[in-house]
Amino acid sequence: VLELDPDDRTHLFEELPGRLTQRLLNMLSPSERVEALKLLGYPENSVGRLMTSDYVAIKPDWTISRALEHVREWGKDAEIVQTIYVVDKDWHLIDDILLRTLILTPPEKKVEDIMDRKFVSLSAFQDQEEAIKVIKKYDRVALPVVDSEGVLLGIVTVDDILDIEEEETTEDIQKGAAISPLEISYTSANIGTLYRKRVWWLLLLLIGGFLSSSVIAAFENAIKTVVALAFFIPVLIDTGGNTGTQSATLVIRAIALGDLDFRRWFSVFKKELIVGILLGITLGVAFFLRSYFWNGEMILGVVLGISLVLIVLWANLVGGLLPLLLKRFGLDPAVISSPLITTLVDATGLCIYFFVASWLLNPKG
Amino acid sequence: VLELDPDDRTHLFEELPGRLTQRLLNMLSPSERVEALKLLGYPENSVGRLMTSDYVAIKPDWTISRALEHVREWGKDAEIVQTIYVVDKDWHLIDDILLRTLILTPPEKKVEDIMDRKFVSLSAFQDQEEAIKVIKKYDRVALPVVDSEGVLLGIVTVDDILDIEEEETTEDIQKGAAISPLEISYTSANIGTLYRKRVWWLLLLLIGGFLSSSVIAAFENAIKTVVALAFFIPVLIDTGGNTGTQSATLVIRAIALGDLDFRRWFSVFKKELIVGILLGITLGVAFFLRSYFWNGEMILGVVLGISLVLIVLWANLVGGLLPLLLKRFGLDPAVISSPLITTLVDATGLCIYFFVASWLLNPKG
Repeated sequence: VLELDPDDRTHLFEELPGRLTQRLLNMLSPSERVEALKLLGYPENSVGRLMTSDYVAIKPDWTISRALEHVREWGKDAEIVQTIYVVDKDWHLIDDILLRTLILTPPEKKVEDIMDRKFVSLSAFQDQEEAIKVIKKYDRVALPVVDSEGVLLGIVTVDDILDIEEEETTEDIQKGAAISPLEISYTSANIGTLYRKRVWWLLLLLIGGFLSSSVIAAFENAIKTVVALAFFIPVLIDTGGNTGTQSATLVIRAIALGDLDFRRWFSVFKKELIVGILLGITLGVAFFLRSYFWNGEMILGVVLGISLVLIVLWANLVGGLLPLLLKRFGLDPAVISSPLITTLVDATGLCIYFFVASWLLNPKG
Repeated sequence: VLELDPDDRTHLFEELPGRLTQRLLNMLSPSERVEALKLLGYPENSVGRLMTSDYVAIKPDWTISRALEHVREWGKDAEIVQTIYVVDKDWHLIDDILLRTLILTPPEKKVEDIMDRKFVSLSAFQDQEEAIKVIKKYDRVALPVVDSEGVLLGIVTVDDILDIEEEETTEDIQKGAAISPLEISYTSANIGTLYRKRVWWLLLLLIGGFLSSSVIAAFENAIKTVVALAFFIPVLIDTGGNTGTQSATLVIRAIALGDLDFRRWFSVFKKELIVGILLGITLGVAFFLRSYFWNGEMILGVVLGISLVLIVLWANLVGGLLPLLLKRFGLDPAVISSPLITTLVDATGLCIYFFVASWLLNPKG
């Protein structure tokens, strides 16, 4: 695997160990490469696992013409030559220069004459999600990766980042539907994988769902007296679940895009409080009208309308604030899936419903 | 707005109308630019709305040294000089050449000597989502945009595509939670916007939810006889909704990533049929055991177990196949939100439940 041609070898041994390691890594097959990067200690989902050494580095004391010659020589293998990196004798990254700037500079000038020593770099131990944010913020095609001492280790390119971002988003979407991330595509996932990634969440939610059964059982007499109370259980709990799903989804995505964090919880609280009241009143009135014209029973309509206002408001606040709370405690807000929100607000929603019913209908029990 | 300096103007009038238009467009403010592009007839979400003219074009009969001089002169304003475009006298795109190839070629050679006339381009009328797929497939930093006659109009760069992709994904995620796409960030959306984007779906789902009420009302006597049947309504319909949400989410994301289309519906059917049976049996057995040990009633446990197997299987197939069906008819599969799936499988799930209960418990009515 590590057979090098003699020319390459001479070049290699002029370089520092970091760069040498990278060059050797690039000769491995993809699976061997992953193994080797693990051994080198870069954690999973770290920038270190993404980087390649397909870049061109130059020295500050070189003339522009020597630098361009070096680009001509080594740029053939480089993935990105738009940006050239300047390193010192110990391979510390000290600047990045656009190839176009090199071309536009008189060839007899020195590299250091056009250096501004301003550059953006990533650490090999940084999380890949942070790398996505940095590369987006600076609109770069590639970013250099350095170790803790600032030694240039490699580059990360935007096309690799695109793939990673797609994976991360897919994982978040799957978590949002109570699926453990598949990690492979749907079509290549076999039945055993699909079953395993889905069954544990479903079982957990099933167990959580028994809480709803206990709530209804506790109001057994209310149902025996007014059996129509049972008719509206699905639509009440679904509406609660739908409302909570909406606010949770909005907040989780805003957190993922860096638009929101825990410090802004009070503004989310205020927003979702008011939106929840407005939605609750709209839906409550619709529900009252619909059930009033269906049953003709004024009082049941009032029970349903009031319950729905309270359930919608409650579900909306739970959905909006729970992801922020998880984020606050360093947990992944994306696990607040719509099924989980639904299960969480079901039992409490039913309590609200039966308390309102007991209060207004005053059935025996 | 259209004040040009004299040098620029000379250059401009040597060019074709298409390119001239692009140059003029780039002098407008972002909002004026959107207005102008609308007037030019590029539909919303088309590639035409994304493109800029920050590229460098050269002619086939130029020498490499003239081409490089042109790059030096015009490349300062260009966003991307990694790829240089070759156009004929009518500004038809005929090739793309890497700047690095230009640099590596002897300066006295002609551009046409190094042309391979192979290039990837986008049409200005293409959908932006397709552009994302193309740019990912070819791992490009930028792609040229041509009109129907192959005239080079501008370029689309990967950083613009990244932003668009983020927006598209956010829209899909919002649709998946029954929210009309916000089109702005959560924090900048005011209460009126949030209310409007959420209330219509909630109202529609509320109305849909009345179907469940009708189903339960039809089995009023069954509940009067065995009131315990009402206890398990939430957990049964939630489990159906959860299962359908899982399969729908997997299939919708696979469609969005181009991993799946309608032609593969039968493989999805087979997969979700088997996974549905396995999940149904696992959950059905768990449900049987839980309710048996709770109530001690064997027969009710059997009713719940059998109902759950059937509901899970049914919901799983609906969730898996409905997005494909929508895609088949040219509709957006992302509107199959988890709330919509839940509402859809609620009424049918309740029918299954009460039929099984009527069959096994044989309550009067």
